[in-house]
Amino acid sequence: MRITERQFVELIRKRAPSAGGGATVAGLRHGLRQGIGDDCAVLAHTRQRDLLVTTDLFLEGIHFRREWQEPASLGHKALARGQSDIAAMGGIPRYAFLSLGLPRRTGQRWINEFLAGFLRLAAASKVVLAGGDTGSSASGFLADVVILGDVPRNQAILRSGARPGDEIWVTGTLGTAALGLAVLQTGGKLRRSHAAFQAFCYPEPRLRMGRYLRQRKLASAMIDLSDGLSIDLARLCEASGVGARIVEASLPRLAQTPLRHALHGGEDLELLFTVPPERSPELPRRLGGVPFTRIGRITLERKLWLIRDSSKIPLPILGFQHF
Amino acid sequence: MRITERQFVELIRKRAPSAGGGATVAGLRHGLRQGIGDDCAVLAHTRQRDLLVTTDLFLEGIHFRREWQEPASLGHKALARGQSDIAAMGGIPRYAFLSLGLPRRTGQRWINEFLAGFLRLAAASKVVLAGGDTGSSASGFLADVVILGDVPRNQAILRSGARPGDEIWVTGTLGTAALGLAVLQTGGKLRRSHAAFQAFCYPEPRLRMGRYLRQRKLASAMIDLSDGLSIDLARLCEASGVGARIVEASLPRLAQTPLRHALHGGEDLELLFTVPPERSPELPRRLGGVPFTRIGRITLERKLWLIRDSSKIPLPILGFQHF
Repeated sequence: MRITERQFVELIRKRAPSAGGGATVAGLRHGLRQGIGDDCAVLAHTRQRDLLVTTDLFLEGIHFRREWQEPASLGHKALARGQSDIAAMGGIPRYAFLSLGLPRRTGQRWINEFLAGFLRLAAASKVVLAGGDTGSSASGFLADVVILGDVPRNQAILRSGARPGDEIWVTGTLGTAALGLAVLQTGGKLRRSHAAFQAFCYPEPRLRMGRYLRQRKLASAMIDLSDGLSIDLARLCEASGVGARIVEASLPRLAQTPLRHALHGGEDLELLFTVPPERSPELPRRLGGVPFTRIGRITLERKLWLIRDSSKIPLPILGFQHF
Repeated sequence: MRITERQFVELIRKRAPSAGGGATVAGLRHGLRQGIGDDCAVLAHTRQRDLLVTTDLFLEGIHFRREWQEPASLGHKALARGQSDIAAMGGIPRYAFLSLGLPRRTGQRWINEFLAGFLRLAAASKVVLAGGDTGSSASGFLADVVILGDVPRNQAILRSGARPGDEIWVTGTLGTAALGLAVLQTGGKLRRSHAAFQAFCYPEPRLRMGRYLRQRKLASAMIDLSDGLSIDLARLCEASGVGARIVEASLPRLAQTPLRHALHGGEDLELLFTVPPERSPELPRRLGGVPFTRIGRITLERKLWLIRDSSKIPLPILGFQHF
């Protein structure tokens, strides 16, 4: 029998104590502001800051194959995925914890390169590797990455704040990582400088953009695009109790990127966020070279629609499901 | 090529920024008091408290086999292992994060029972399940458990504080979990009430004892016995730059427990700690029904000896190595 990630989250949610409002008391007790079901857990930390915690599993054969990527790229992505969760709350990553399960035949050189990729990104984003665990794995390589970050108190941007009428925006381009994967998994070659190689092998977590949106209080809700636009938009809408219309022609994508990758391709690590319409004129066109693009609007009707030319079709939800 | 856990820790330590003294500044930055190489990472948290973080991998085929244990026991142990790391710092566990890799055929009932075991122990120790991740695993079941806890500032009990002349103490009995495993893995039966069944399937993390020792400042150094007395004692001695003599006749064990299990058996989740001799009269004989037993003494000479009758033999280090 298989369960979906969503069913699993529901299962835990039903059994675990619910998140409370959470006054800051001595220690961490009673300080859970946001529990299971957002990009990060939000814990009361000090009077000024909340703590963000995210955990990301990275499993060979499920999330990646070693044939498609060099080890440094896997180390980079293992960390980037978690940093993207922190970015999606508007937070600042501080500490990483790396747990590794290594198949018995893993070479020292492979491990060194994996760690080099991980630590290069950590240094670039001023994240300290503070601990972890290791074991040998009976089958494939696996990593579990935990990141601790923080954010000013009560200012984490949740998935649940989108309101009807809000505009829907994304950073960067959509489907570019899926384009890179499609080339590499069929044995094709990509120059290292190609946008699709970079997007798939060395995606840059949008920390600066997330922080910018939080500091200016421009985003009413936010999520990172790890599993694909359609599924991650559905998650944001469900958490907010709303629906959405997406305009097909507005989706930012490379000329070579098929529409299906822009709609459903995973691992872009871009940010998807909503902005009250009166605030959107304050958004810059780009930040650090990365464009912001408006792609649709939040609706009261709790359905997802794709606007193609002048017709309206139901948006299929086909993003990457881990089960 | 295989690497040992110790080599891996060294590899990361060389490449990662070192732990600093760490003033408490806004957020978590610059607050790493103790990084890789102790039971938990210790982070500056508030003016009053430090944060403890521990991550524990729990891999089928490496750390456990499903044939030997019911799922509720595995859920219990997945959490107990991390709680034991918090106990070994004298800390209080607050939040748990559970990442699960589930083989595609895992039944709903199996998962429910695993979670029930996990959540029963969480509730008993007032730990909140605050998040996690799930994925399907291409091979065996795996769990990675992260626990956040806290401790009054600068009061975490490290592995590195043992001094020559300090007495060596343990909680509970040694080798009882290994005895349980030995029976179960050969297809034998144990009554649920048998101490060896409880020690192997439902070990109780020594949170109360760890906290007691920290509050009274009785322990100069502490570690939990997860991999076996000989290897965990070697870790404590190495971190402290000291050696030790252990008196064979003093090791607390059940009548049925072979000496080799008491010396080298893993997963007892008891605490091993050192006490300055002038403070040991303040130790109670037992706490919550669990005895404290003196088993040896810390030495200036950096070697490990086993005192048998009136002779002295080198203590072999045979504990469980994850590689």
